Amino acid sequence: MNYQNILQEIEEEIQPLYKKGQIANYIPALAKINPKQFAMSIKLLDGTTYNIGNTNTKFSIQSISKVFTFTLALELYGRKLYKRVGHEPSGDPFNSLVQLEYENGIPRNPFINAGAIVTTDTLLSKYKDKSFDNILDFIRIAANDSTISFDKEVYNSELEHGFMNLALINMMKSYKNINNEISDVIQTYFKQCSIEMNTEQLANSILFLANHGINPLTNEILINEAKAKRINSLMLTCGHYDASGDFAYKVGLPGKSGVGGGIVAIVPNKMSICVYSPNLNKQGNSLIGTKALELFTSKTGLSIF
Amino acid sequence: MNYQNILQEIEEEIQPLYKKGQIANYIPALAKINPKQFAMSIKLLDGTTYNIGNTNTKFSIQSISKVFTFTLALELYGRKLYKRVGHEPSGDPFNSLVQLEYENGIPRNPFINAGAIVTTDTLLSKYKDKSFDNILDFIRIAANDSTISFDKEVYNSELEHGFMNLALINMMKSYKNINNEISDVIQTYFKQCSIEMNTEQLANSILFLANHGINPLTNEILINEAKAKRINSLMLTCGHYDASGDFAYKVGLPGKSGVGGGIVAIVPNKMSICVYSPNLNKQGNSLIGTKALELFTSKTGLSIF
Amino acid sequence: MNYQNILQEIEEEIQPLYKKGQIANYIPALAKINPKQFAMSIKLLDGTTYNIGNTNTKFSIQSISKVFTFTLALELYGRKLYKRVGHEPSGDPFNSLVQLEYENGIPRNPFINAGAIVTTDTLLSKYKDKSFDNILDFIRIAANDSTISFDKEVYNSELEHGFMNLALINMMKSYKNINNEISDVIQTYFKQCSIEMNTEQLANSILFLANHGINPLTNEILINEAKAKRINSLMLTCGHYDASGDFAYKVGLPGKSGVGGGIVAIVPNKMSICVYSPNLNKQGNSLIGTKALELFTSKTGLSIF
Amino acid sequence: MNYQNILQEIEEEIQPLYKKGQIANYIPALAKINPKQFAMSIKLLDGTTYNIGNTNTKFSIQSISKVFTFTLALELYGRKLYKRVGHEPSGDPFNSLVQLEYENGIPRNPFINAGAIVTTDTLLSKYKDKSFDNILDFIRIAANDSTISFDKEVYNSELEHGFMNLALINMMKSYKNINNEISDVIQTYFKQCSIEMNTEQLANSILFLANHGINPLTNEILINEAKAKRINSLMLTCGHYDASGDFAYKVGLPGKSGVGGGIVAIVPNKMSICVYSPNLNKQGNSLIGTKALELFTSKTGLSIF
Repeated sequence: MNYQNILQEIEEEIQPLYKKGQIANYIPALAKINPKQFAMSIKLLDGTTYNIGNTNTKFSIQSISKVFTFTLALELYGRKLYKRVGHEPSGDPFNSLVQLEYENGIPRNPFINAGAIVTTDTLLSKYKDKSFDNILDFIRIAANDSTISFDKEVYNSELEHGFMNLALINMMKSYKNINNEISDVIQTYFKQCSIEMNTEQLANSILFLANHGINPLTNEILINEAKAKRINSLMLTCGHYDASGDFAYKVGLPGKSGVGGGIVAIVPNKMSICVYSPNLNKQGNSLIGTKALELFTSKTGLSIF
Repeated sequence: MNYQNILQEIEEEIQPLYKKGQIANYIPALAKINPKQFAMSIKLLDGTTYNIGNTNTKFSIQSISKVFTFTLALELYGRKLYKRVGHEPSGDPFNSLVQLEYENGIPRNPFINAGAIVTTDTLLSKYKDKSFDNILDFIRIAANDSTISFDKEVYNSELEHGFMNLALINMMKSYKNINNEISDVIQTYFKQCSIEMNTEQLANSILFLANHGINPLTNEILINEAKAKRINSLMLTCGHYDASGDFAYKVGLPGKSGVGGGIVAIVPNKMSICVYSPNLNKQGNSLIGTKALELFTSKTGLSIF
Repeated sequence: MNYQNILQEIEEEIQPLYKKGQIANYIPALAKINPKQFAMSIKLLDGTTYNIGNTNTKFSIQSISKVFTFTLALELYGRKLYKRVGHEPSGDPFNSLVQLEYENGIPRNPFINAGAIVTTDTLLSKYKDKSFDNILDFIRIAANDSTISFDKEVYNSELEHGFMNLALINMMKSYKNINNEISDVIQTYFKQCSIEMNTEQLANSILFLANHGINPLTNEILINEAKAKRINSLMLTCGHYDASGDFAYKVGLPGKSGVGGGIVAIVPNKMSICVYSPNLNKQGNSLIGTKALELFTSKTGLSIF
Repeated sequence: MNYQNILQEIEEEIQPLYKKGQIANYIPALAKINPKQFAMSIKLLDGTTYNIGNTNTKFSIQSISKVFTFTLALELYGRKLYKRVGHEPSGDPFNSLVQLEYENGIPRNPFINAGAIVTTDTLLSKYKDKSFDNILDFIRIAANDSTISFDKEVYNSELEHGFMNLALINMMKSYKNINNEISDVIQTYFKQCSIEMNTEQLANSILFLANHGINPLTNEILINEAKAKRINSLMLTCGHYDASGDFAYKVGLPGKSGVGGGIVAIVPNKMSICVYSPNLNKQGNSLIGTKALELFTSKTGLSIF
């Protein structure tokens, strides 16, 4: 299949959508980004790469970081992790407190904010003040790129405006589902959200999930096969907050979005994909990114279903 | 792969689980079934069949019927259907009223009771008093078996004890999301739930979803390819109520369970599977059935992820 | 105090409010009433009466009937009644299903619809097919007026459009908190809601609650003193759905409203009051009626606080 | 009426209840208090005092402080205050986040924690770093007792374990319903909760609410009559969290409880009452205190209904 042609078709077809959606405005450092951007990268298991658009532009990975911290925590703790964070879709927005209260501080899954904060807390219990370094190292190894880092301005902006996340973490602490100091956990969490990459780096970093846990380009084993499949399943059922069902329905691929405008997705045994466009739909997922992936699976028939 | 050997291994490994779970007890006609039963059927696209256990025992398909009525309604109405029923996981039990109230009588998806009742209502608007006949005919054609029918005793038992479903339908009627007479809709709905089949019949009936909408044994086109993929996606994200995430996580196949003890699942482009065992876990899905499918994908590596 | 003057002042001051609010439109028979009506009656313990406006106009008492059925049920069952219906404010609209689901079919209080339906069910267990006759007789004795009856057109209109109440009663039946046939309970409930009276009749009928349970004009003992106080307390905390706090805050009297546009209130040891005006505020209470009572306690200082 | 005799009868009748209930255990400094204590003070408008039990024992007033801060804020802001905190019963526990999320960070009333925190925030906007001094001064003037102070150990214990309150305040901050620094607001809030008094001091401090806003012993005007009535109404409908209806039903007096074991109540135009006993019922109100007040109104007939 001629993926480059397909990317060009997609780029044309998404043009009318630039005026739709809205940039993430609850973090000032994100609110000032130029919304009219689009980039998409495809990485096959053999390393072949297809790019279109602003694929050199780095952006904040935000919630895409949850895939990496969950991978690390699942590797460390296995099934024990499920006592502290579930693996069911929540049916609610990414920062909802309601379900958390009814369920005594145990978040539904690691891809909503509360669940990702608990996941980061489990890493702090192991890696202490080296936690963020470990997270960053893991991502660098996964992407085979030691230049990846985080954006201090975004990080500070999140720290200053992270009231809802502080509400979540305090609530979970009151239910004894946070074991470390709130300030340590929240700083690590905001740092991981502030990591920046471009679409090709992200496509590289996620390729191991299309290949049973092994980066096929470096042969680095990042997680075992059974766990890699479970992470993919979780991306499919929970990767897009309360639009996860819609994403599975229209795109049909395991994926994870971030409010920075990025979405990663994988086609098992074939490729990883990353798309970027900053305007978000009302569920907080990249509007053009979602459409681009829907067009991609329509044109290629590469849905997992 | 030697599927017959795998079925035998599964049958041995699930033995210790017979004492766990509980039979559906809210419908008297179901409550009296012998819980110590197990059957599993695999049907490849070429028609090869593998059976184990009581594969001649007919049982009530219950919520598995939702797959067929949704297929019919999606074929009839296409996207228009989404105005009346969504396609997001609900994160709640199968009969919850809470979400329905917050969302003004629009059910989250067609695989929870409220959504299936709306789906049946859309069929009544088209087929009037021939609605149940059409549903049954569709299933007979899908399974290529004209002997399939419904169990009158189960049907009457449901009618007498269906208060929660009557609560749901009355609520949706108050939100104007039911267009036909409540008694007509509810009778049709309970009849479809009371259809009985054995595991091989069910595996046959669902095979079209493993083959892009076409029954490969009869070449009958039951729905187009794009829609077949969407039905599969919906089974993955919503097929098991508030255990849908767990099923996707552990089994990794699109599937749909019924409180009668049956579960159907498909491996795209390869096969359909049906398993039966009446005891349910606390989310209302066959306990042994879920475990058997988990063992199946572990042993074969046939997860979609 | 010159109550007639005060009523005249109130009538003048509420004039600008006729254009506000909206008539109950979910029951067609109520929707066609002329909204520009106002009537208010005061009845002192010695029988002195003050009237203003259309005090001869009969209207549907609707939820005001809940006070009478609760009085009857409390007299019959005493504390045992609390096992089936609570006495806490619900904080939710009059017909909410959410709380009912979380609390397993036990309504918060007898003045929301679910609670009143349970109350009527307890009367059916005692009075069988004489239940509505008993309710009507009780009201006739309380008001000392044998001409009081119900409006068949309103009753039929409620029966045809009572889907939300049918949702509530079916849900409670599924939780085994309804003991009689759903159709019997709902018919009795809708009949009691369809009873019609004018403001003076209602002021008479409720006077016993201002006088320790005894109608001071006939010396009829309708309930004992301790229970009368508790009914008053319940009217204060729960008499106006999710505007109960606001009514207590601004008016400061035990009262109960109905969507027919009536509100009754009592000043302990002094008087009963009834006001009528059909347009409702968004919580379903008479907009002008609420304001008239607020003006009344401001002008007279007769709040219980 | 011989109030001293009545207090003695009450003290005898509550004896069997000492083994019931449980001390507040979420704040370590409160958890170590001797649970077997009882004190009750009555203060008539003419200054006559009736005491029984450990009326010299000081205890943490906790949520009773909400009455004083609300009085101060209502005096300062009048109706404008309602934009930031409502006056409806919540129907939920004292620290629930659910309702707050559905209602966009506007707490239901000033007597649940979220509402009291907003109230304190409004005082900080006016009094800046003198806020706590102002609150304490107000209480000293109300009680005519300059020795009243707060308990530093309790304050520090609350600061260390106040995760749920931090969740609430961060959530409201995210909805922009907190205008000052979170740390300033929460410190002031915990200080006011840590104020300690004995039952006679509390009865003195609250006497103004039984006398139209004026302390009858000092003639100090603390708030105007209309506002005093509204504070009383709010205590009746919202003073005891999700047991407010039950308290109104059984006791029939405006009152406010604190998890320190104290309850204050007033009989309009007659007296104030304070009762103390540390063991709490499951809604977080003094178990013996509630019973003592129920006995008091049964024996004296002094319910407002």
